[in-house]
Amino acid sequence: MHDNNIKRLLNDIKSGQIDVDEAYAKLRDLPFTELGFAKVDNHRALRKGFPEVIYCEGKTAEQVRVIAASILERGSALLATRAERGAFDAVSSICSDAVYHETARVIAVDRRPQEASVGFVAVLSAGTADVPVAEEAVITAEMLGARVERVFDVGVAGLHRLLAFHEMLVSAKVIVVVAGMDGALPSVVGGLVSCPVIAVPTSIGYGAHFGGLAPLLTMLNSCATGVAVVNIDNGFGAGYMAALINQIGEDER
Amino acid sequence: MHDNNIKRLLNDIKSGQIDVDEAYAKLRDLPFTELGFAKVDNHRALRKGFPEVIYCEGKTAEQVRVIAASILERGSALLATRAERGAFDAVSSICSDAVYHETARVIAVDRRPQEASVGFVAVLSAGTADVPVAEEAVITAEMLGARVERVFDVGVAGLHRLLAFHEMLVSAKVIVVVAGMDGALPSVVGGLVSCPVIAVPTSIGYGAHFGGLAPLLTMLNSCATGVAVVNIDNGFGAGYMAALINQIGEDER
Amino acid sequence: MHDNNIKRLLNDIKSGQIDVDEAYAKLRDLPFTELGFAKVDNHRALRKGFPEVIYCEGKTAEQVRVIAASILERGSALLATRAERGAFDAVSSICSDAVYHETARVIAVDRRPQEASVGFVAVLSAGTADVPVAEEAVITAEMLGARVERVFDVGVAGLHRLLAFHEMLVSAKVIVVVAGMDGALPSVVGGLVSCPVIAVPTSIGYGAHFGGLAPLLTMLNSCATGVAVVNIDNGFGAGYMAALINQIGEDER
Amino acid sequence: MHDNNIKRLLNDIKSGQIDVDEAYAKLRDLPFTELGFAKVDNHRALRKGFPEVIYCEGKTAEQVRVIAASILERGSALLATRAERGAFDAVSSICSDAVYHETARVIAVDRRPQEASVGFVAVLSAGTADVPVAEEAVITAEMLGARVERVFDVGVAGLHRLLAFHEMLVSAKVIVVVAGMDGALPSVVGGLVSCPVIAVPTSIGYGAHFGGLAPLLTMLNSCATGVAVVNIDNGFGAGYMAALINQIGEDER
Amino acid sequence: MHDNNIKRLLNDIKSGQIDVDEAYAKLRDLPFTELGFAKVDNHRALRKGFPEVIYCEGKTAEQVRVIAASILERGSALLATRAERGAFDAVSSICSDAVYHETARVIAVDRRPQEASVGFVAVLSAGTADVPVAEEAVITAEMLGARVERVFDVGVAGLHRLLAFHEMLVSAKVIVVVAGMDGALPSVVGGLVSCPVIAVPTSIGYGAHFGGLAPLLTMLNSCATGVAVVNIDNGFGAGYMAALINQIGEDER
Amino acid sequence: MHDNNIKRLLNDIKSGQIDVDEAYAKLRDLPFTELGFAKVDNHRALRKGFPEVIYCEGKTAEQVRVIAASILERGSALLATRAERGAFDAVSSICSDAVYHETARVIAVDRRPQEASVGFVAVLSAGTADVPVAEEAVITAEMLGARVERVFDVGVAGLHRLLAFHEMLVSAKVIVVVAGMDGALPSVVGGLVSCPVIAVPTSIGYGAHFGGLAPLLTMLNSCATGVAVVNIDNGFGAGYMAALINQIGEDER
Amino acid sequence: MHDNNIKRLLNDIKSGQIDVDEAYAKLRDLPFTELGFAKVDNHRALRKGFPEVIYCEGKTAEQVRVIAASILERGSALLATRAERGAFDAVSSICSDAVYHETARVIAVDRRPQEASVGFVAVLSAGTADVPVAEEAVITAEMLGARVERVFDVGVAGLHRLLAFHEMLVSAKVIVVVAGMDGALPSVVGGLVSCPVIAVPTSIGYGAHFGGLAPLLTMLNSCATGVAVVNIDNGFGAGYMAALINQIGEDER
Amino acid sequence: MHDNNIKRLLNDIKSGQIDVDEAYAKLRDLPFTELGFAKVDNHRALRKGFPEVIYCEGKTAEQVRVIAASILERGSALLATRAERGAFDAVSSICSDAVYHETARVIAVDRRPQEASVGFVAVLSAGTADVPVAEEAVITAEMLGARVERVFDVGVAGLHRLLAFHEMLVSAKVIVVVAGMDGALPSVVGGLVSCPVIAVPTSIGYGAHFGGLAPLLTMLNSCATGVAVVNIDNGFGAGYMAALINQIGEDER
Repeated sequence: MHDNNIKRLLNDIKSGQIDVDEAYAKLRDLPFTELGFAKVDNHRALRKGFPEVIYCEGKTAEQVRVIAASILERGSALLATRAERGAFDAVSSICSDAVYHETARVIAVDRRPQEASVGFVAVLSAGTADVPVAEEAVITAEMLGARVERVFDVGVAGLHRLLAFHEMLVSAKVIVVVAGMDGALPSVVGGLVSCPVIAVPTSIGYGAHFGGLAPLLTMLNSCATGVAVVNIDNGFGAGYMAALINQIGEDER
Repeated sequence: MHDNNIKRLLNDIKSGQIDVDEAYAKLRDLPFTELGFAKVDNHRALRKGFPEVIYCEGKTAEQVRVIAASILERGSALLATRAERGAFDAVSSICSDAVYHETARVIAVDRRPQEASVGFVAVLSAGTADVPVAEEAVITAEMLGARVERVFDVGVAGLHRLLAFHEMLVSAKVIVVVAGMDGALPSVVGGLVSCPVIAVPTSIGYGAHFGGLAPLLTMLNSCATGVAVVNIDNGFGAGYMAALINQIGEDER
Repeated sequence: MHDNNIKRLLNDIKSGQIDVDEAYAKLRDLPFTELGFAKVDNHRALRKGFPEVIYCEGKTAEQVRVIAASILERGSALLATRAERGAFDAVSSICSDAVYHETARVIAVDRRPQEASVGFVAVLSAGTADVPVAEEAVITAEMLGARVERVFDVGVAGLHRLLAFHEMLVSAKVIVVVAGMDGALPSVVGGLVSCPVIAVPTSIGYGAHFGGLAPLLTMLNSCATGVAVVNIDNGFGAGYMAALINQIGEDER
Repeated sequence: MHDNNIKRLLNDIKSGQIDVDEAYAKLRDLPFTELGFAKVDNHRALRKGFPEVIYCEGKTAEQVRVIAASILERGSALLATRAERGAFDAVSSICSDAVYHETARVIAVDRRPQEASVGFVAVLSAGTADVPVAEEAVITAEMLGARVERVFDVGVAGLHRLLAFHEMLVSAKVIVVVAGMDGALPSVVGGLVSCPVIAVPTSIGYGAHFGGLAPLLTMLNSCATGVAVVNIDNGFGAGYMAALINQIGEDER
Repeated sequence: MHDNNIKRLLNDIKSGQIDVDEAYAKLRDLPFTELGFAKVDNHRALRKGFPEVIYCEGKTAEQVRVIAASILERGSALLATRAERGAFDAVSSICSDAVYHETARVIAVDRRPQEASVGFVAVLSAGTADVPVAEEAVITAEMLGARVERVFDVGVAGLHRLLAFHEMLVSAKVIVVVAGMDGALPSVVGGLVSCPVIAVPTSIGYGAHFGGLAPLLTMLNSCATGVAVVNIDNGFGAGYMAALINQIGEDER
Repeated sequence: MHDNNIKRLLNDIKSGQIDVDEAYAKLRDLPFTELGFAKVDNHRALRKGFPEVIYCEGKTAEQVRVIAASILERGSALLATRAERGAFDAVSSICSDAVYHETARVIAVDRRPQEASVGFVAVLSAGTADVPVAEEAVITAEMLGARVERVFDVGVAGLHRLLAFHEMLVSAKVIVVVAGMDGALPSVVGGLVSCPVIAVPTSIGYGAHFGGLAPLLTMLNSCATGVAVVNIDNGFGAGYMAALINQIGEDER
Repeated sequence: MHDNNIKRLLNDIKSGQIDVDEAYAKLRDLPFTELGFAKVDNHRALRKGFPEVIYCEGKTAEQVRVIAASILERGSALLATRAERGAFDAVSSICSDAVYHETARVIAVDRRPQEASVGFVAVLSAGTADVPVAEEAVITAEMLGARVERVFDVGVAGLHRLLAFHEMLVSAKVIVVVAGMDGALPSVVGGLVSCPVIAVPTSIGYGAHFGGLAPLLTMLNSCATGVAVVNIDNGFGAGYMAALINQIGEDER
Repeated sequence: MHDNNIKRLLNDIKSGQIDVDEAYAKLRDLPFTELGFAKVDNHRALRKGFPEVIYCEGKTAEQVRVIAASILERGSALLATRAERGAFDAVSSICSDAVYHETARVIAVDRRPQEASVGFVAVLSAGTADVPVAEEAVITAEMLGARVERVFDVGVAGLHRLLAFHEMLVSAKVIVVVAGMDGALPSVVGGLVSCPVIAVPTSIGYGAHFGGLAPLLTMLNSCATGVAVVNIDNGFGAGYMAALINQIGEDER
């Protein structure tokens, strides 16, 4: 459509319906979304089916409902993170197929044809308290088209629990590791596997944990290679990143 | 080979050459490298040809030479980061095909058959002062088999410089963004492209920069999706991570 | 009036109604507001019509009402920031023309003849969550006599939204940029325009955001020139500063 | 010139020398500097004569010389900050009219017709140790066309020194206040004047000063209105910002 | 009494009622309060009449009542800080002459003959929001025998308010300065007077104030001499310290 | 039992009931708990009778009940820390001999034959406000088999209180020192005794205490030897560590 | 003299030699040093003989010499802190009676009649490494007229060393306590004595000491009353403060 | 000897050579070293043969020599940490049997009869760069009588290296774990063994490592039980603590 706008303008010049100076002025005035970088944005949505995402914190249930309605008008998928049940109720009222993932605090609507990826994302959590953040990563990655395997409660203080999943870990295409407390799990996992590891520190802990600063620093200083880090409690960001990586090469398969 | 060891033991039990208690004790005493997770390590080296890496900071030139000799005995590639020229001279004395990347402060030896990847890694730097870290990422990614495109000095304060490379950026399989100062570049890049972005804060700056803390926090709080972060000045880690991601799907092509 | 006090004293000396020692003692005892620097304060209020401002946080509705009454007795404008609705109700009870700007949490009364400035202040917000701080800047600047244009939700992760307002931004006399998360917007704006930019970090974010520390550091380290920073969430301070700058040269026009 | 490029293209369409699809493709391929925001950059340099600035820290004398040569080819002014004498010697060798401001560590070349601004910038320093940063602000502001008045060593612990300059301060169009130690001076100055104040914390201090963090926080929390802050030791940034503000309305005078 | 215990022992040795070895053993077994440093504690209470102080935060009203009862049994004065009204009601029930200083959140009982000190402590607050901490200092100093003068709301952004009290400030024996926000007041006061200044940062502020860290650092870095600092919001500590200093030389007068 | 599993397999090989390849596959498939490091875990529980511990923070009463039931099925002791009364009520409903230590917020069940250790752990607290953390250490150490002596409210500002317990302190096998505020007690205790000291900073304090950071740093910088530190408020960790140390040599006695 | 200036003006009005408007203008133009607060500064120097102090860090030997010369012209005492031997040599060249206190890095000249105070300041250091800061406090206090007693190397890890000086400590009028490492000494001293204690943290330590932050926080959180704190390594500030306090009541004696 | 002093005094009372008041005064004047806690100090040295330790940082070689001489006069062992070779040369000149441990930077003299402990301390290092700190722990523990086993370069990124030592680790009486970078090793080790673990963070790392803060926080937040932490780089403290623990029960064996 945007292309049509520009082409129509060029055709109008050719046909003499508009003169060059006027056309030049119009070109300069075209809203920026008419240009390349803006189109990328739209193109991405079309090609990958990645839904726009609502970050619910600080928004009223009503506001979430309105934004959700606008997104669902234009597309067939909806992802809303950090959503309380009230927000879900509001979305449900306009969309009966909305699903509420309570632990992850995520609202999801997905009306696209379902097709699991060949490769998969493994999502690990060190403790049970880290599960909500891990679940946010799981749902996000799934909404973005990735097959996901959960491996929860495998902290390094009981190493055998982690090692029991060794076989599966080395098969993953990318691994998300969620850990609070000392944040040591990504270093150990990064040493066991050869795929990329996305580390997510959580705010689970107390005292000199400083709201997640401790595991964040641990992860940034990981002595294993192939580890990158997202913000504290940012399960969404990790799931998104993992799905992007997992998507690579899927089309060729 | 390891498997053979274990199987031989089991055969010895069967044939009665060793009794059960003795065999049991031997099983417990097998060095851990006989087990699955250890083998992975070797397997990875064989399959991917990823060289072991020497971190030179705090090591004497002599120490670097000795480790390098040991690595080259077992393999056909060598990567040494944070290397001063003295370390390079020492390595050169035992290995005439060593190359010194001065800006990146990296020593590299590569005797493997060269084959460029189909996909490529774009490495961006915000300022000229960030180039050494960016170069470390470039050399590391190349040593790990990735084709790399450099896009240097494209900080956000002169947006047109970055936007001029838009076409190339959207073609990259993964992008490394190196930035000191305000660390704003990864957010802008992450908003322009749909591939994974690895952000590297640098210690370039002064005052309330606090040795790279400022861009580190900026990057962790990036409002763009698909951005993960490595440690301050960790060009090596970013290049390694990017090469892992770039490698995905290459085999199928 | 103060000048009159002093002059009357000097006249009394001349006329012999008071002797020198007594006059000298009185001069020393004059409340300091009689002296130069204090007069500046009053002079400024007279000349610019800048209202005294009530910071409501930590004050009861009743306290706000009393202070507001005292200000309105002496002048024709009132600005109260960080005001809850209760405070507004209290002020309304004594002043029916008070207006409550709910998003900005600002109470305003303005009985002065309205006259828009020729130049204008552009107030930008990166996200919708930053709008309350941006609105505080808007109302403050308007109360101080500035014409204001709002450009909200133009964060750098969707660059085209910002660039669509390019024309307007280069026409502004001064720009206030409000941003939480990564705080990258002022650097980009500062690179696009040649007027002064006042950057306001907000406490909007989570994890390694540390209550606004992340965008604060980003902004202090901005690689763009012509950027200065105010305290986290200090929309009032930014609006005030911007109005001071916008006022320059208005009289000559 | 850029405009000509685009107009020529439009004319070519009109004349039929190029068809619409081809023209559309070319429009998309135009380097970004062809567009509005890029032109701003050039336009600003032309209109204001603000020289491009070299930040010398981390650059060799030779590198500074090369960049300086390139700038002087295109323009008639040069500003290089954080320059050691060696860098000056290198620049001098290609440009005999270069001046070295030793205290400010600034190299300046100015071949433009000199014309003092009507308004002026007052640059204050709290202590003698803050003078180098203050001088950097002075030279920068002057290079950007501002008339500057220096008021040095007027820290708040000896208030009378500051108050003696009261008359001059209230005449300034904008004030730069440079202070290390407790950083209290901008609050006091901000309370005395009604013009904008740009506060610059310096790294001068010891102990719980933490490299300038103490005065930085003081200034961000200033209880005076009309105060904004730049990075620690960023005399250049403050001088630049002050000159931008001082420039407002100058043309009308 | 303790002295009597020891002397009786020595007398018993002299009279032969106890032999040397037994006496030696008893001397070693004397509870430590029998020794010098312990006695100091008691001696101080007797000589100065300084009451033991209850820090109420984290204690139930009932607990405060019990401790208060025990203190009043042994003495004639009671000071309880950070006390909510509930605690006061509990104390009132056993002690009808208890007074509740609401702003300071202090409970006080004083049954000693009242006698004002000759010298006096001036307690200053920068803003009205700092008054509760300042009042805690005032009541504490008064309970410890000092005459106190209050000078509230004299922040540096309106310097004339402070200077109007110049005469009184130079007469004070010691000054307590309470300030939140930028914490600049002690530096200015320290420059005006020659007596000791006790600076108290408060947690009043927002954003980069970090709960009082900003004024704390300001005060520790004060460029005025004769300034020492107590903990954030520690009005009690400042009042206590000031009273100790004010007490010096009082006896000789 | 696990050993039996492996030995049975080996015997089956010997007897020909299973062939070597099949046995080898089974060995690889054995859950990791069959291997050495995993067995340690079980062995430790059997040998020392240390109960598994529930950290209740962030768990519902129901969740605590379920986990507690599962632990009590397998063993004869239960320890649950940071437990509110609701959690205790839930546990009581399935286990009438559960005890709630209110101050320590600990639920304990102990059905093992009781036997006090010969050596003992001394647990000191600096202030009364530190007692809950100290009590958590006490109960934990007792559950792990240690005899414990409490010495509470012996902060360094009243040194005689501490010194009165000198005799007992030098008899302890290991000492836990719990302190908030300035955290100075472990340094003093560490200088008085020759046994190991485990220091526990608490979050008790205000202002520049920063949630326990102040005493944490004090303790890490202790000028006494033989002092190690656990996390802020981690009474459980200190009690556990102390009991481990106290257990050494007990068997030989 | 200043008073005379003002009175002369008033007399001139009376005598009609100057008219009221002109007199009023002159009053406004009087340099601020003519007013009360400025006079204080001079008055203090006259009355107390407290010398102006040179902070040598960042000044050349030559600069120190010039300032010293200017001070000695106007007075009979000189104090220069943080002085290297080179600075001393420069001062010696113009003033043969200058003394260099090497440990304290202080240059002192004192040509005033010597008279020891009746009361005295005790200066304590925890470790031998803290002695330079302690000596700076000693020399400063002595230059300001105080009698000083040194008590060095009495850290809390060997309590008996401190307690041996108990008698002397309780006789002091004010105590300066210098401590690095854990900074615990002021709390212990503050509990032993009833006079004011000025605590000085030092940068002596390593690891989590963070350049003196650890003892600074310890001291601010001291659980003893009557303790105030100066900046890290600020022996000068502590000695100055102590001398101010010690001076109180001396005149009456 | 001290006891004799006191007894002689008591005898003098008995014999009438001194009267009670005089004796009482003398008792109060006895230096504190006459009392119990001081004697403990000496007693410990006698009983355990633990040498006094010299911390050489900031001391001249000459100073170290003098202190060493004084220690060796009174005893048969010497330990000096953070010693440069110059200090060793100085000590050698007075003591030919001094040994210099270069990696650990420790000077040791030991003339006591050698006797290895039955139990042993395992000292682990994560990387080769952590070895100097680990060696300081080793030498310290050995000087204090412990048998030590070194397990170096067993970081968690190559888990098999650590697990290969599993057998030995579970036999240790106490384990010291030295780690820089992410500091994850103590958590893994703490999960494998049931003995106490002393964790030592090192300053080895870069970027967001902040001089050891990262591994320090990791270790304080360890999710394994039985882990306590000493200061960054404090190998001496860890070795000392480990030796104290290892000593327990040795006498009974």
